[in-house]
Amino acid sequence: MSSQDAGFKAALEEAKQGAKEGGIPIGACLVNKDGKILGRGHNMRLQKNSATLHAEISTLENAGRLPASAYEGATMYTTLSPCNMCTGACILYKVSRVVMGENNTLVGGEDFLAQRGIEVVNLKNAECEALMKRFIEEHPDDWYEDIGEPPKRP
Amino acid sequence: MSSQDAGFKAALEEAKQGAKEGGIPIGACLVNKDGKILGRGHNMRLQKNSATLHAEISTLENAGRLPASAYEGATMYTTLSPCNMCTGACILYKVSRVVMGENNTLVGGEDFLAQRGIEVVNLKNAECEALMKRFIEEHPDDWYEDIGEPPKRP
Ligand SMILES: [Ca+2]
Ligand SMILES: [Ca+2]
Ligand SMILES: [Zn+2]
Ligand SMILES: [Zn+2]
Repeated sequence: MSSQDAGFKAALEEAKQGAKEGGIPIGACLVNKDGKILGRGHNMRLQKNSATLHAEISTLENAGRLPASAYEGATMYTTLSPCNMCTGACILYKVSRVVMGENNTLVGGEDFLAQRGIEVVNLKNAECEALMKRFIEEHPDDWYEDIGEPPKRP
Repeated sequence: MSSQDAGFKAALEEAKQGAKEGGIPIGACLVNKDGKILGRGHNMRLQKNSATLHAEISTLENAGRLPASAYEGATMYTTLSPCNMCTGACILYKVSRVVMGENNTLVGGEDFLAQRGIEVVNLKNAECEALMKRFIEEHPDDWYEDIGEPPKRP
């Protein structure tokens, strides 16, 4: 697993697309056991006034209805450590691996994923972190809303 | 908390609406600390070919973007014990209470909710259970797909 994986590159492209749209710059991509991309997406809170379209949820939604077997051996790439909702979605569909760009911005449900037997990889990617740092500096209220926390000011 | 609560009645109406549409008959309703309904919805897997619009996710989505303070003291009513994704969504937004119609059809993330300090109430409502029993008998494959499990036959 590396920042050169096609799934990670797609997730990062999605995050940048989100940034371009003025949205929260988090992207994700779901890749099956054979390396095929099943779906990709980015956080749509601002673009769609959505409370649930985090990057991973957008990705699962874009992948569409699939039988349980489609997720066997699959990897969810995401540019940021998954929040509790997205962690739960990965557990629901029993993906085999979650590969995150970074967890300096937020530490999500990594321990819970590991407890459920899902492999967790942190790529410690500086580009993912820089996208979030810039967004949070410019739009702190939107970010804290996205993670269900009261607004904080530096 | 009882089957007479306005929030539970709305969740059950949503489940019946889902059944009427030929969908998976699970409904939910989010009520704030003052008793106001913030959103309601039902499972849309079949209606929208959706992998993520479980009843509770539909409800949060229909409630729209809200600050963290809107969820303080809120109750998520749902006709069925919440799966891991929906459990995670309730934890993300820190609702105070989850009231379920029943958990004979499925036991979801109840223990995890309780560990996170969220009150869990089971109304053991026969009508909720009967809706699911009938649906699963008629459409087992759709049901197991919704909970990320391989098809099972009786
Ligand atoms: Ca996100
Ligand atoms: Ca549901
Ligand atoms: Zn998330
Ligand atoms: Zn669910």
